[in-house]
Amino acid sequence: MDPIPQLTDLLGPAHVLTGEDTQRYAHDWTGKYKGTPRAVLRPADRDQLAAVVTLAARHRIPVVPVAGNTGLAGGAYADGALMISVERLNRIREINPRARTATVEAGVILSQLHDAAAAQDMVFPLTFGARGSARIGGVLSTNAGGSNVLRYGTTRALCLGLEAVLPDGRVMDVMSPLYKDNTGLDLKDLMIGAEGTLGIITAAVVRLFPRPRAYATAMAAVESLPAALDLLNRLQETTGGAVEAFEYMPGNFMRHLFRCRPELRPPFAEPHEINIMVEIGATAPRDATPGPDGRLPVVAILEEALAEAMERGEVLDAVVAQNEAQRAEIWHRRELSAEICFSRQPVIDNDVALPLDLVGTFLDRMEARLQEIDPGAETVNVGHLGDGNLHYTVWPATDRPEMKEIIREAVEDEVAALRGSFSAEHGIGLSKLSTMTRRKDPVALDVMRRIKSAIDPQNIMNPGKLIPSGED
Amino acid sequence: MDPIPQLTDLLGPAHVLTGEDTQRYAHDWTGKYKGTPRAVLRPADRDQLAAVVTLAARHRIPVVPVAGNTGLAGGAYADGALMISVERLNRIREINPRARTATVEAGVILSQLHDAAAAQDMVFPLTFGARGSARIGGVLSTNAGGSNVLRYGTTRALCLGLEAVLPDGRVMDVMSPLYKDNTGLDLKDLMIGAEGTLGIITAAVVRLFPRPRAYATAMAAVESLPAALDLLNRLQETTGGAVEAFEYMPGNFMRHLFRCRPELRPPFAEPHEINIMVEIGATAPRDATPGPDGRLPVVAILEEALAEAMERGEVLDAVVAQNEAQRAEIWHRRELSAEICFSRQPVIDNDVALPLDLVGTFLDRMEARLQEIDPGAETVNVGHLGDGNLHYTVWPATDRPEMKEIIREAVEDEVAALRGSFSAEHGIGLSKLSTMTRRKDPVALDVMRRIKSAIDPQNIMNPGKLIPSGED
Repeated sequence: MDPIPQLTDLLGPAHVLTGEDTQRYAHDWTGKYKGTPRAVLRPADRDQLAAVVTLAARHRIPVVPVAGNTGLAGGAYADGALMISVERLNRIREINPRARTATVEAGVILSQLHDAAAAQDMVFPLTFGARGSARIGGVLSTNAGGSNVLRYGTTRALCLGLEAVLPDGRVMDVMSPLYKDNTGLDLKDLMIGAEGTLGIITAAVVRLFPRPRAYATAMAAVESLPAALDLLNRLQETTGGAVEAFEYMPGNFMRHLFRCRPELRPPFAEPHEINIMVEIGATAPRDATPGPDGRLPVVAILEEALAEAMERGEVLDAVVAQNEAQRAEIWHRRELSAEICFSRQPVIDNDVALPLDLVGTFLDRMEARLQEIDPGAETVNVGHLGDGNLHYTVWPATDRPEMKEIIREAVEDEVAALRGSFSAEHGIGLSKLSTMTRRKDPVALDVMRRIKSAIDPQNIMNPGKLIPSGED
Repeated sequence: MDPIPQLTDLLGPAHVLTGEDTQRYAHDWTGKYKGTPRAVLRPADRDQLAAVVTLAARHRIPVVPVAGNTGLAGGAYADGALMISVERLNRIREINPRARTATVEAGVILSQLHDAAAAQDMVFPLTFGARGSARIGGVLSTNAGGSNVLRYGTTRALCLGLEAVLPDGRVMDVMSPLYKDNTGLDLKDLMIGAEGTLGIITAAVVRLFPRPRAYATAMAAVESLPAALDLLNRLQETTGGAVEAFEYMPGNFMRHLFRCRPELRPPFAEPHEINIMVEIGATAPRDATPGPDGRLPVVAILEEALAEAMERGEVLDAVVAQNEAQRAEIWHRRELSAEICFSRQPVIDNDVALPLDLVGTFLDRMEARLQEIDPGAETVNVGHLGDGNLHYTVWPATDRPEMKEIIREAVEDEVAALRGSFSAEHGIGLSKLSTMTRRKDPVALDVMRRIKSAIDPQNIMNPGKLIPSGED
């Protein structure tokens, strides 16, 4: 049966796209996943969206939710399925600065929520490069991370409650605006990070925080990764946990950055191997009011911590931003990471996490492994060191097609040996299904499959993503 | 078939308790729930525990996990079931101050973990009155809250990964020590707060934080609840989020406190209606080193905030602890709350949560409702105001047995109208099954039942708790 006429009745012809019109939804920005959806549907609100899913369920047609199309793992790939875009569910229903919550629909763009919070002198802290395109529904469905998870947690920690349309079209309302709510199984966190396999998130209540009045931002060249971790731990004590970013930009990243972007200014006179970008956010007036010497106290705190670490020989060089332009320059280098890592082909990108004290061990072991497997392979890394999250990118020297798999396996081996994760923040989608099969605890996989079947017995909701079928 | 001989072979006779020997496990401390377990089993480790569950599953015998027996909701009630105590799984496997994690088994007592963290100059921040008896397995299974959720979150936010024995005896390992780990559905958070209905948590990796070097603790009499929330929000800005406790002790609580404990000293010369206990924790040396006037800077920050609020007329009186003895006195009053609230019978205790800005609305509405329903009923309340969590206790004036239900219904009505929760931190167990049926979103309830059946198809794992059967 052709569902398009019924869908057109439901949504109006302008919001049922077929053929060529589906193309801008049908491929991700990496260009790796390009599908042919049966149609792209743009419901106006939650009830229309639920009606679309009900119809799809009745006809057993697979459904793929799409939000901002900024994922890296193929989670929104659709071939033959109905794509449901949440873009028109785009209201910020409430910003409540006293209760420190915002109620937002799934189609709201992350940077719109940033702006709406800022207008009330608050911050929704989650942020990452794609913030101008990513939409809240996708942010929630992938449990997005980014640069200041260190202070505020991942999306999961920032979401208090949500509503979702289930695979049978029913609406589940766990839209709690509360900081404590122990009423049964934790369905909110089950939906977050489920990549749309259990339903389509339509709205959420998220946490807001007081907006920092000032930042202290620096680049530091550090003697070793253990010294970097000590620096982070010391800064966390000194600032009461106000470190917002602690980013790792090793020598290999810096070299390729200045090769690709020769117009950029290096942070230090001499290149260094371990470069850390650190940022502290100060909400307290006492930290954000210039002292007698004209310095912001929050900047003084950072400068003193860096000076002490230099005396101990743990920090080799450091530059603290003295104004907003210098801060922007420091961030700009970091935010070019995707461009740098994908500047050469073939590329093997790995989004791994490690226990904080084992990042250096991982890098040492990988260097040795790569020397054996593919001498001459280059790595270019960047990472959220404060979370143990490394974007570990390899440019193989050998152009044999199987080399990609061999290197990926080696990365996964070393990550597993250190109890790390093969997917820190980018998720599984289609891209890591076989890794899930090989690396995830088999009992956990079985539980995931049981939950999926229990909630989506027809297997129509984003089928084939996140949870390997067991036949892969 | 009698499983006891096989269980005795497995665990040794000392760890298979029957008859009278089961009694200290079989009733909770409120005395409300008193069961007759078939036996109490004390496995030595995870593998023995898994073997016990495997045996129970084979014979379809219900299993009830028990940890510290400090729950308030009947979650560990067992009649005819095998009780499995986790008390012998009591190793703290690792305290890692550099990675800021601890690996602990389910039988570890909360205060033991506090001590082990403190020995490394770290803190595991979760705390509440029963910390000397509650065990980690129960803390996790109930997603315990307590007094400093405001700063550090509930148990869920403090746990990075865990392992659990499933209802069929298999071990599920999602023991991630990572701050970012997006590898499939969030089974960790599903097990937390599941009250043992999906399996038995045997160990976990939890977060540690730097230990505050100094505290500033005060009692403040505040003009209104909105003024109290403004004070909290201002303190959060001024301290960069270092408020650890913001506790509400209204006039009714204070009056009964000093009636029950006449030896205690009131905080203020005159009684007040809205009393707030506030505590700030300072990890920074600059806040914990006495200034030229001998004051700790963290204390000065609190004193100044209170003085400013007094000038605005928002704070009516305030006393700041000048030493550890005065701090202990302030905490002691707060920690007597269970004794005070249960000092009269009959008692209707409600553990509710509200949006932060609607706590006063709830109290006003309830006062009006109670005047209609049961004029002369008294309330005695205490709460974690920073989380919107109220322990709202009613002593009815009318001794009709149905009055309890009528008042409970009224509380639930008002909570629901404000999008609050009927169970903030104590959980559901047996005590709130009928409330779950009436008040929880029916679609969410259906999803919980499906998940329960998918993971525990024989319904042997803590059956009848948390998730109403649908036939209640």
